[in-house]
Amino acid sequence: MASPYTPPVQLLIDELGRLPGIGPRSAQRLALHIIKSDEHDVTRLAQALVDAKQRVKFCTVCFNLTDSDLCNICSDTKRNSSIVCVVEDSRDVVALERTGEFRGRYHVLLGLLDPLQGVNPEHLKVRELLTRIKPEEISEVVVCTSNNTEGDITAMYLARLLSPVGVEVSRLASGLPVGGDIEFADEVTLGRAFGNRQRMEA
Amino acid sequence: MASPYTPPVQLLIDELGRLPGIGPRSAQRLALHIIKSDEHDVTRLAQALVDAKQRVKFCTVCFNLTDSDLCNICSDTKRNSSIVCVVEDSRDVVALERTGEFRGRYHVLLGLLDPLQGVNPEHLKVRELLTRIKPEEISEVVVCTSNNTEGDITAMYLARLLSPVGVEVSRLASGLPVGGDIEFADEVTLGRAFGNRQRMEA
Repeated sequence: MASPYTPPVQLLIDELGRLPGIGPRSAQRLALHIIKSDEHDVTRLAQALVDAKQRVKFCTVCFNLTDSDLCNICSDTKRNSSIVCVVEDSRDVVALERTGEFRGRYHVLLGLLDPLQGVNPEHLKVRELLTRIKPEEISEVVVCTSNNTEGDITAMYLARLLSPVGVEVSRLASGLPVGGDIEFADEVTLGRAFGNRQRMEA
Repeated sequence: MASPYTPPVQLLIDELGRLPGIGPRSAQRLALHIIKSDEHDVTRLAQALVDAKQRVKFCTVCFNLTDSDLCNICSDTKRNSSIVCVVEDSRDVVALERTGEFRGRYHVLLGLLDPLQGVNPEHLKVRELLTRIKPEEISEVVVCTSNNTEGDITAMYLARLLSPVGVEVSRLASGLPVGGDIEFADEVTLGRAFGNRQRMEA
């Protein structure tokens, strides 16, 4: 059966449906929204897509997103260069920056190890991390990967890789989220929070 | 605090976040996907957006989407012109066409009545429907609006509007979905399915 949509609409639905997390229904809804939108808004969205793709590159040092050679964090001389936070992608940089807790540097891996899916160290910016970590300049590497299987594997791999180099490797604490009720916590989280319990200062 | 993303990325996130159903997190995820994509793919998506907006218009008869004056259904002379199916938007035309049950014409309202949100008949293609419905040419109007409050209001409004014109107005049956278990049906659906029960031929 021929597509029931007129060709330019079907083409747009197909293109939108290739984006991650956009299923066939969302793609239809978005396409109809585009058709109903102001032409100026559509042109601006199309331009933003092309611009972002053409102008944005990865920082040559940490692989964060930037529109010049160095990202705004690597080029900020006021930040502490002796501590490096290793993250999966730029979203995590943004999330950590929002906490205001960290004033060091980042290293973006552009993914997490996932051997079952064939994602090995050579697919990530691991070699670049190793070249960058010099014990005379860097004292601590904080592995800020997600608290899931891929995050665990990546953290363990990096800890084994970096320990011989002579830097301290740490990882984000695992435990109850702030505001998290014990009765609603899953047993793995609760078990880990119990195992990692911290001495209180009286 | 300045945006932690480099400007072209933040701009793209903002533009994507204006689309319906795309929240801030989805917008970030999509933007990072775009940055990682092949430039050719991004250009194609941008072009599809602009093309769809520029080339697609509403059919001058039924307001379905088309890239010429008449949509492919209105220009198909083999279809039955005496029965018109009234729908909310082009997605419903596609859904009904997929059933293969209907070989008549459509009329797309481009919305549903929603008085609480200020959507009144003059915001929809209601006047155009009324002009189009001539009892000597059209015998039945099937109101195929969703089975919710706005769909109900629109269907009732159209039934009252069209009855004096002298055409039969019908509506999609309401009942248990095919494959639907009674025990999982909500009480409104089940009550309506009971009220609309149909005599079985032995």
